[in-house]
Amino acid sequence: MKTLCLLALPLLALATPLTAQEEVPPRATPGSVVAEADDAEWVAIAPQNLLVMDLAPDAIGTPRRVVIQLMQAPLSQPWVENIRTLARAQYWDGSSVNRVQDNYVVQWGQPDEDVGGTEKPVPDGLNVVPEECYEIQFDGGAVCEPGSDAPDYLRGTPHAVISARATRSDDHPLGWHGRDPYAEWVQFHDGWPIASRQIGEQPDGAPVWSSWPTHCYGMVGVGRDVSPDTGDGSQLYTVIGHAPRHLDRNIALVGRIIEGMEHLTTLPRGTGPLGFYERVGELVPILSARIAADMQDAPAYEYLSTESESFERYIAVRANRLDSFYNIPAGGVDICNVPVPIRSAGE
Amino acid sequence: MKTLCLLALPLLALATPLTAQEEVPPRATPGSVVAEADDAEWVAIAPQNLLVMDLAPDAIGTPRRVVIQLMQAPLSQPWVENIRTLARAQYWDGSSVNRVQDNYVVQWGQPDEDVGGTEKPVPDGLNVVPEECYEIQFDGGAVCEPGSDAPDYLRGTPHAVISARATRSDDHPLGWHGRDPYAEWVQFHDGWPIASRQIGEQPDGAPVWSSWPTHCYGMVGVGRDVSPDTGDGSQLYTVIGHAPRHLDRNIALVGRIIEGMEHLTTLPRGTGPLGFYERVGELVPILSARIAADMQDAPAYEYLSTESESFERYIAVRANRLDSFYNIPAGGVDICNVPVPIRSAGE
Repeated sequence: MKTLCLLALPLLALATPLTAQEEVPPRATPGSVVAEADDAEWVAIAPQNLLVMDLAPDAIGTPRRVVIQLMQAPLSQPWVENIRTLARAQYWDGSSVNRVQDNYVVQWGQPDEDVGGTEKPVPDGLNVVPEECYEIQFDGGAVCEPGSDAPDYLRGTPHAVISARATRSDDHPLGWHGRDPYAEWVQFHDGWPIASRQIGEQPDGAPVWSSWPTHCYGMVGVGRDVSPDTGDGSQLYTVIGHAPRHLDRNIALVGRIIEGMEHLTTLPRGTGPLGFYERVGELVPILSARIAADMQDAPAYEYLSTESESFERYIAVRANRLDSFYNIPAGGVDICNVPVPIRSAGE
Repeated sequence: MKTLCLLALPLLALATPLTAQEEVPPRATPGSVVAEADDAEWVAIAPQNLLVMDLAPDAIGTPRRVVIQLMQAPLSQPWVENIRTLARAQYWDGSSVNRVQDNYVVQWGQPDEDVGGTEKPVPDGLNVVPEECYEIQFDGGAVCEPGSDAPDYLRGTPHAVISARATRSDDHPLGWHGRDPYAEWVQFHDGWPIASRQIGEQPDGAPVWSSWPTHCYGMVGVGRDVSPDTGDGSQLYTVIGHAPRHLDRNIALVGRIIEGMEHLTTLPRGTGPLGFYERVGELVPILSARIAADMQDAPAYEYLSTESESFERYIAVRANRLDSFYNIPAGGVDICNVPVPIRSAGE
């Protein structure tokens, strides 16, 4: 029979050899670029930045392990430290996935009382993080100083935010102006998708940027109550649909799922408001959540350095698909359509 | 116990009254804007533009109906007509969902022989659609003329495409320049998300635009073989993750899922290459697929006119979330983060 092979052919190009003369080989694919990256371009993820969460096995007994890479310094560090504290207190053991909203988020933690949750106090020593920690200045020296008042620029109105737009759009690594609907500037930084906006100038005229991670598919964030609450880390969520970038700077991101995403995305959607499960039997039990540094036999991973030549080529190929399946290269790519390649250590 | 209510509060603002003086009411939410839209702003979807697909019930006997809205003229019409022809020939009855790739697509049609598929010829009379039909000119009179050679601009190299970029970015309805990583211009047109690029000028200097629908979450497209094949419509797919906009103009979009999306997004991910299922038992049977115009008791739906005042306000609110949960409005929004509101007819 005839086999229609939607999107099947790019993989066939994996074996296409790259030559030095061609900066973007005509038949290169994102997969072929990653496969040919040099081992030296891969960066080990520190064990203290891995949260290993085991759900109860599924209906036919298949284990369900979800692994989260936590952000390294300087992003979101007070929350990330809370997550380590919570994991070491075994806070999530016996908790559950409580909410699955299609094209939006999966959320987990202690369930509400109305679906059988019981009181489980958080451990002592959690950081109370102020809202200004949603953004940082990479070049600003001290970042995220808990306790200080939120700066004025975090209190902008829609019009103030729009008027701050800049025109840094030419020759952008993401192509097509690097045009982003949500920020003046987007880029990758030490393995993470980052958006930025100019908040001032230095004495020499150089721009001062304020930056934040972006809510892409698989990113993990911290549930919270209304402002100024920023969440203590005990309730976490991940994005399972199109990037809800309107959450950027309104809620803390702390990491991303690097293995086992399908164990969350395939869960039944909740029938309650916002996709919350309504019955005890729907909750998906979490057996344990541990920091890899505290585990024996912990899994280990690496990511392709976002400062590497291969990553630059990977972006270029994703922005300009032109292999046997593609006739019309887009010329650009959404930052959330550039997942950072991850592999098991030593692969 | 403490209930962290990530994203829970915007819905509470549904009852917030809108007043005429406030163009973007401070506490309006997308939901409240849609709820307050006038009945006259809703557009009935013609029964010949609805494909009703019933999957086999799930493991506990729950019916699984998926409803697809097909594009009306002038977009993608040769393919849409094929889909009506295929449905009327009951082509998909007894076929299956054969592929589920996380953060990408679900694909259905006759399965391959290696997973138990048997030959099922397509009906006579299917259009063979040329590649130039991926784009149309809304103002260009005759659109999509099968048989003509593909115009040169469809054969562009990456650099040619990039150099065609224009600067129509100010005062865009989507805010934040209407900046789109994939196209010069994005907008909604008669209920659909549309991207455009300038391909010339009219004698009076007015730009001539070429346009195409965008691969947003839930959009439905036509599987195909390699170029110049464009697919006959017998293999369809839908987007279940972040918008794979690099597929735009490379493969035909024909509609979107407006009900039952969760029956596809929750399916187990396939373990074969590209997420194809590898065993007969994994296939999800399709009992029937019918055009609503051919059904008794067909469901009926309406969409919020994308040319309505309420839709304009809906975009503005999605681009500038500033209710009890949001402190920092983005000032812009990705076109794929603006799902067109759908409701059952007469709701």
